[in-house]
Amino acid sequence: MKTEHKEKMKKRRRNLKLTVAYDGTNYHGFQRQNKCVAVQNVLEEVLPSIFGDSIEIAAAGRTDAGVHARGQVINFFSDGMIPLENIPRAANRLLPKDIVVTDAQVVDRDFSALHSAKRKKYIYKLHHNKIPDPFLRRYSWHYEYSLQLEPMQEALSQLVGKHDFSAFRAAGGAPGSPVRTLYEASCQKKGDIFTFCFWGNGFLYHMVRNIIGTVVKVGNGKISPAEFAEIVQSRDRNKAGKTAPAAGLTLWQVYY
Amino acid sequence: MKTEHKEKMKKRRRNLKLTVAYDGTNYHGFQRQNKCVAVQNVLEEVLPSIFGDSIEIAAAGRTDAGVHARGQVINFFSDGMIPLENIPRAANRLLPKDIVVTDAQVVDRDFSALHSAKRKKYIYKLHHNKIPDPFLRRYSWHYEYSLQLEPMQEALSQLVGKHDFSAFRAAGGAPGSPVRTLYEASCQKKGDIFTFCFWGNGFLYHMVRNIIGTVVKVGNGKISPAEFAEIVQSRDRNKAGKTAPAAGLTLWQVYY
Repeated sequence: MKTEHKEKMKKRRRNLKLTVAYDGTNYHGFQRQNKCVAVQNVLEEVLPSIFGDSIEIAAAGRTDAGVHARGQVINFFSDGMIPLENIPRAANRLLPKDIVVTDAQVVDRDFSALHSAKRKKYIYKLHHNKIPDPFLRRYSWHYEYSLQLEPMQEALSQLVGKHDFSAFRAAGGAPGSPVRTLYEASCQKKGDIFTFCFWGNGFLYHMVRNIIGTVVKVGNGKISPAEFAEIVQSRDRNKAGKTAPAAGLTLWQVYY
Repeated sequence: MKTEHKEKMKKRRRNLKLTVAYDGTNYHGFQRQNKCVAVQNVLEEVLPSIFGDSIEIAAAGRTDAGVHARGQVINFFSDGMIPLENIPRAANRLLPKDIVVTDAQVVDRDFSALHSAKRKKYIYKLHHNKIPDPFLRRYSWHYEYSLQLEPMQEALSQLVGKHDFSAFRAAGGAPGSPVRTLYEASCQKKGDIFTFCFWGNGFLYHMVRNIIGTVVKVGNGKISPAEFAEIVQSRDRNKAGKTAPAAGLTLWQVYY
């Protein structure tokens, strides 16, 4: 029955791929919720009025409550005739200002925003200062304790490559292999902003925020880069640090 | 009676000067309101619990609803004994996250945040792009039409010096001389962000936003820099452009 429905959807005129940016502060994550408002609820409410048919969205990544996106990717099948180049403007006129469609493409019938994704990039921002900044509070973790860049860079470099990331996997995530490949795990500092970049073939539930919560212990001198490596090898979530706040995290880009 | 009250206040132990940064998006301006929440309402509610006495704030500038501040300055007299260096942390623990005390000083008894201010700097940000940005929407004017930097720079340079700014004065502002001196009126562009800087000995009600609304007509090619100068000389508010959106404006710094 479900397959039948999917096949029916696939007979629609176009498979549309939209890139979506959002300030996640006021949403309960991306994935549709019944009792609270997620980004998907808003998109599935607004897009039908542009396309003229009901919309069922598949998305590249399920961002959590408070997590942001610059390059979330969604796709759906539609018979709607609106010219491609008019889609972002038409959507943005109806969407709340914290959700923006930045691009629209027609893609192959077998493209899936979720299943076709090959790599993803996440950026995490930390504001390192005794005094908070009201303009950064929605988009960074405000951290006021001692924090050294170099030990964090050393710890993160050990994550590059293919690893079992069980130590950073949240309870409650989907089952499946905990092995992922990271192409980049880095940290740069500019003024009082630390920017962490993670680029990989996939990410476990809470993986980036759990890595951040642990690597900050390295930056703070509580554990050494070698102990960080031991935590990874232990595959024991209880040995790693706390989950870092959602506000600092942004799904930056999805690669197909 | 009012003078008597002021004299009584002045007998308190310290005259305190606080620097305050705030994201003005959710406030009805700085100045205390009865029916809605202004930044001053919040400060006058929170600060007494730190100082132990009632607080009456004087502020350098009354920012409008939706306008931000990095360097708003307030002062008040208090008998409270809290050590100076503990004030920002104690205040920020109690304040909502969009209002931050960034600095505290003890100042001379005759210092007034309002009357002692010699110069102020305002920054206005405009995001020039067909597509809005959900992370800039609270802090900039999203402008999607043609916009040239050089004509705006030429127009603004004519504002430097001592001028009658009646053409940019909002109805409803306080009476008094419309003459102000600007030391800087400039515009720079980085990527798709235009940053306007105004530095002067004082500003009329809505003056910066009215200048922006007019100079953008120059950037858009609707009027020339020479016609901009004629509008200034006309001293006629009806000849100038619309008031630019509040979100782009930040009270950057106050000089004493």
